[in-house]
Amino acid sequence: MTDDETAIRGIIERWVAAIQTGDLDGVLADHTEGIVMFDVPPPYNGVRGMAAYRASWPPFFEWISSGAAFELLELDVTAGDTVGYAYALLRCGKPEDFAAKPDVRLRITMGLRKVDGRWRIAHEHHSFPMTD
Amino acid sequence: MTDDETAIRGIIERWVAAIQTGDLDGVLADHTEGIVMFDVPPPYNGVRGMAAYRASWPPFFEWISSGAAFELLELDVTAGDTVGYAYALLRCGKPEDFAAKPDVRLRITMGLRKVDGRWRIAHEHHSFPMTD
Repeated sequence: MTDDETAIRGIIERWVAAIQTGDLDGVLADHTEGIVMFDVPPPYNGVRGMAAYRASWPPFFEWISSGAAFELLELDVTAGDTVGYAYALLRCGKPEDFAAKPDVRLRITMGLRKVDGRWRIAHEHHSFPMTD
Repeated sequence: MTDDETAIRGIIERWVAAIQTGDLDGVLADHTEGIVMFDVPPPYNGVRGMAAYRASWPPFFEWISSGAAFELLELDVTAGDTVGYAYALLRCGKPEDFAAKPDVRLRITMGLRKVDGRWRIAHEHHSFPMTD
């Protein structure tokens, strides 16, 4: 693993930890202003820009604090000089969700750019597979 | 747009065109052997490797040829020296799907690597937003 890949892995692991504790500043710490997120729910065209990205988190923090898991199971990072991407599988849900579908996974893919020597998340894609 | 970004855009536009015409060789032309796809349906851990990726397409071609649209509406590409990513919104569905949800979009994110001077798709993430 290159130094850049190690740096990106650290950013994503800290982002997951911040989500687990509802730490909004931590969740937003390493994103570009122009972040485009394809979230699990709509909007259909994505969550665009830092203000919209910030606003998307409080309802999710409430759901996590009501007893949902958000655990990183697999993380694969690829980085070049100034651009990288990563994909991950997470265990994300409440006990009743895993009772119904024990092996269901949240899938996350990220696009990253190195800006002024620092890696930042510029794109996120979160989804569950469609089972019906 | 850099030359690398133009090359990646061309690869993705040709991949979309190959899907529209059910051209399996065209769909597989620019992927790594280790391709990992998070597809719309399961498997939960993703479709892994070229043989599994290849096998995933024929049922989708049947669905397209039965009257479903697969149209690229937006494509954003970012590339560095040897790594790139792209995200896209597509109009994908049958007339009855759009009657129910006119604005629903398929979201696709890709991770790419430049191998021996040629860009290849190493990761794909396809999803619809969850609306229920």
